[in-house]
Amino acid sequence: MQSGTNLPKVGRYNRAVVLDQIQLADGISRREIAECTGLTAQTVSGIVRKLLDEGIVREDGANRVVSGGRPRTTLRINQDAGSAVGLHFDPAELTCVVVDLLGQPLATKRRPAPPGAAPADVVAAMADLVRDVLAEADVPRSRVLGLGLASPGPIDQDLGIVVAPPRLMNWTRVPIKQMLSEATGLPVTIDNDATAAAVGERWAGAGRGVANFAYFFFGTGVGGGLVLNHQVHRGGSLNAAEFGHTSVLEDGPPCYCGNLGCLETLVSPEAIVAETYRRLCDQPTGSVLSEPFRRDPATLNHALVRVAAADGDPLATAVIDEAARHVATVAVNVVNITDVDLIVLGGAGIRHVEQRYVDVVASAVSTRPLARHIRVVDVTHSPLGPDAAVVGGAALVLHDAFSPQLSVLLPD
Amino acid sequence: MQSGTNLPKVGRYNRAVVLDQIQLADGISRREIAECTGLTAQTVSGIVRKLLDEGIVREDGANRVVSGGRPRTTLRINQDAGSAVGLHFDPAELTCVVVDLLGQPLATKRRPAPPGAAPADVVAAMADLVRDVLAEADVPRSRVLGLGLASPGPIDQDLGIVVAPPRLMNWTRVPIKQMLSEATGLPVTIDNDATAAAVGERWAGAGRGVANFAYFFFGTGVGGGLVLNHQVHRGGSLNAAEFGHTSVLEDGPPCYCGNLGCLETLVSPEAIVAETYRRLCDQPTGSVLSEPFRRDPATLNHALVRVAAADGDPLATAVIDEAARHVATVAVNVVNITDVDLIVLGGAGIRHVEQRYVDVVASAVSTRPLARHIRVVDVTHSPLGPDAAVVGGAALVLHDAFSPQLSVLLPD
Repeated sequence: MQSGTNLPKVGRYNRAVVLDQIQLADGISRREIAECTGLTAQTVSGIVRKLLDEGIVREDGANRVVSGGRPRTTLRINQDAGSAVGLHFDPAELTCVVVDLLGQPLATKRRPAPPGAAPADVVAAMADLVRDVLAEADVPRSRVLGLGLASPGPIDQDLGIVVAPPRLMNWTRVPIKQMLSEATGLPVTIDNDATAAAVGERWAGAGRGVANFAYFFFGTGVGGGLVLNHQVHRGGSLNAAEFGHTSVLEDGPPCYCGNLGCLETLVSPEAIVAETYRRLCDQPTGSVLSEPFRRDPATLNHALVRVAAADGDPLATAVIDEAARHVATVAVNVVNITDVDLIVLGGAGIRHVEQRYVDVVASAVSTRPLARHIRVVDVTHSPLGPDAAVVGGAALVLHDAFSPQLSVLLPD
Repeated sequence: MQSGTNLPKVGRYNRAVVLDQIQLADGISRREIAECTGLTAQTVSGIVRKLLDEGIVREDGANRVVSGGRPRTTLRINQDAGSAVGLHFDPAELTCVVVDLLGQPLATKRRPAPPGAAPADVVAAMADLVRDVLAEADVPRSRVLGLGLASPGPIDQDLGIVVAPPRLMNWTRVPIKQMLSEATGLPVTIDNDATAAAVGERWAGAGRGVANFAYFFFGTGVGGGLVLNHQVHRGGSLNAAEFGHTSVLEDGPPCYCGNLGCLETLVSPEAIVAETYRRLCDQPTGSVLSEPFRRDPATLNHALVRVAAADGDPLATAVIDEAARHVATVAVNVVNITDVDLIVLGGAGIRHVEQRYVDVVASAVSTRPLARHIRVVDVTHSPLGPDAAVVGGAALVLHDAFSPQLSVLLPD
C-alpha cells in the first residue's frame, strides 16, 4: 500500500535534500541550494542553521560571488564531524575501511578470510579488523556513525541474514547483522556487495548526482547495483540488479544459480582463465603467455591474462574482448529494460583492462538499444576501483544517515 | 537534482494516496484509510470531505461493521463523476474506448488504420473515432477528463512526438500530441502502448495494488511496462521496459532495432508462423494444420496456430511452448534485474494460449532467478486481454489525475 506523508517526515526529507546538495557541490551557497531544490530561502536557511549547529556542515572562509549579486557564504560538509566503517566480505578476503563524512578513506586494512569460513570465526576476524583500522585512523568508536557490511547476496534485510550465498557452503541463513553488531558494539547496516558498491559510486564515485545508473561489479562473481530516480532500487525482495545471473545464451552452460548461460559463467575469473587455456592449447606460440604456459600451465591466472591484454597481447586481448562483448549484451539488455543514463563498470575483476571493457560496452550501448535515437547512454569505469565494495559498505552508513530517501518520506 | 517538497505538494500527494485506497478497495471506511496510509484520522477526514464535495467519492448506504467497533460509513469512487477516452494506435487498427472513473469501459469502437498511414490522415480518423465513441456512450465532451493515446514507441514526452516508431516508416518525429489535441479539443496524454497497458493493469487489471510488476505486451511486436515501488518506471529517456528488444540469443538473428537475437524476432506473429511453416514442411501429417497447409500454405496465420495449440494440437503446442520458453528467459532476466513481485502477460498475441505462456513462464521464474529462495514471483495473464492497450490509454488520463505520483511530491 502507498503511504501518505506528514510534516515531520517532510522536514527530515528536506534536510537530507539540502545535505545532498552540499555533499554533491564543491562549495554551494544557501541561495544556490534553494534554486536547485525548489525549497524556499527560508526553509533552506532554517535547515542550514541546524546543520551548522550540529557541526555536520561548515561555512568556509571564502564567499561565492555571483555576477551582479552580493557575495554569499560558501557551505561545505564538515568532513571530520563523523566517520563510518565499511567492511567487505569476499569469500577469500576481508577488507575494512574507515571514511570521513565525504566518503574519503582515512585507513584501510585487509586480511585473508579465515580458512573454512565458519560464521563465528569470520565475525571474530571482522571485529579484529574493525578494531585495527579504527586504531590506525585514530578514530574513537564514539565518533563512528555505524558499520556497513558489503556481503555476498542474497540477503534477507528484515532478518539481517545472509541466505545461501554463492560459493559459501556453510553460510545458510546466518544472522550476520546481529552477530557483527554484538562483536563490534556498532550499529550494522548490511547489503549485497554490489549494491553497496553502487551506493559507494553514488556517494563518492562516478554516480554522483546521476538520477539513473547501473553498476556492474566484477569480483569473484559478477554483481550489480541499480539507482533509479536517485534511489537505490533494491526490488520487491531486496535482490535486484543481479546482472551476472541474467542469461546471455539461452541454451548456454548451466550456472550454479539455476539459470542457463549466465553472464557470470562466461566472464568470471575461472571462465576467462579456461578460455585462455583453450586458446593457448590451440595456438601454442605468439602470445606473451605461451612460454610460461608451456613451462607450467598452472601458473595461468586471471590477473596475468588482464595484464597481458593491457599490454596489447593479441591472444589475451581476444579473450578479454570476448568477455567484454558478453558484458555488452547484458548492458544493452539492462538499458532496454531500465533505461538508465549511465553504466559504471567496477571491481577488481576488470583491473588493468577497464578501458577495453568500457570501449566495447560503450560501442554496444551507442548502437543497439531501442532508445539510442533519443540519447546515448554513458559508460565509464569506477574511479573507486577494486575498493568500491568496501568504500560502498561505509557509504551504506552515510547513505542511511544523510541521503534523501523516499523510505523516510513514505515509510511502508 | 533531487527536489525538496512543501505543504501544498504534500496536500496534493496525500489526496491522491487517499483516492488510491478508495479506488483499490471494494468499499473502505475513513478509519481503514488512515490505518493503511499512516495518515491521521483528521487528515483523512479533511481530504474525504473535499472529495465528497467534488463528487469524486460517494458514501454508499451500507456501513462497515468492524468487530467490536461501531459501524463506519463506506466510501466508494463515484464512477460516474467523469470519463476518460483511450485510443490505441496499432499500425493496422485504431481502437477507441470511453471509460468511467474506475476504468470500466462504457463503449468501444474499432476501425482499420487508414492505408498508407500518413500522420494527418491517421489523426483525422482518430478524431472521428473519438466523436463516435462519445456519442455511443452518450458522454458529453465536457465530462471527459482527457484523451490518452497508446502509441508505438519510442516517444519523446517533452515534445509530445513519436520518434521513428517501428513498422511505421512515415512516422519520424510526428507531433502527435498537439495534432490530436487540436483535432479533438481534448487534453492529450501520450505514452508507449505497452506502458499504457501496464498503467491499465495497475488501474483496472492484474496489477492493482502491486508495488512492483512487469507487464509483457504481445501485439504486433513485444513491448513491456514496469511498475516499481508503485510508480510507473519510465526511465531516464522515458523508454524503459523494452522487453521485446532484449537479447535472448547473443548471436541470434539481427532485429530491425539494431540488436541481435531479440525476443521479438523469436516470438512475433511472423516468427511463430515461420516456425510453424518450417515444422509443417518437415512433418507433413499429424497436425490439424497439416491438411489446410497442404491445400494452401498462405492460409496459415498466427491466430490459427494459437487456436490449434489451445486445442492440444501437438505441432502447434510445440511451437507455442518454444516461444513461451523464449519469453521465460526474458522474464527470468527481468526478475534478476528489477526484482519485481509479479509478471503479467497480456495483449492479443497470446489470445487462446494465455495459460500455456503463463505455465512456462511461471515454471521458469520459480526455478531460475537467484532470489527464488526468498520468494517466488507470481505470473498471471491480463484480465484486460487484447483491450489492455486501449483501456491503458484511458487509464493514463485517470492515472495522471488521481494516482499518487512522486512527480507531484518531488517535481523535477
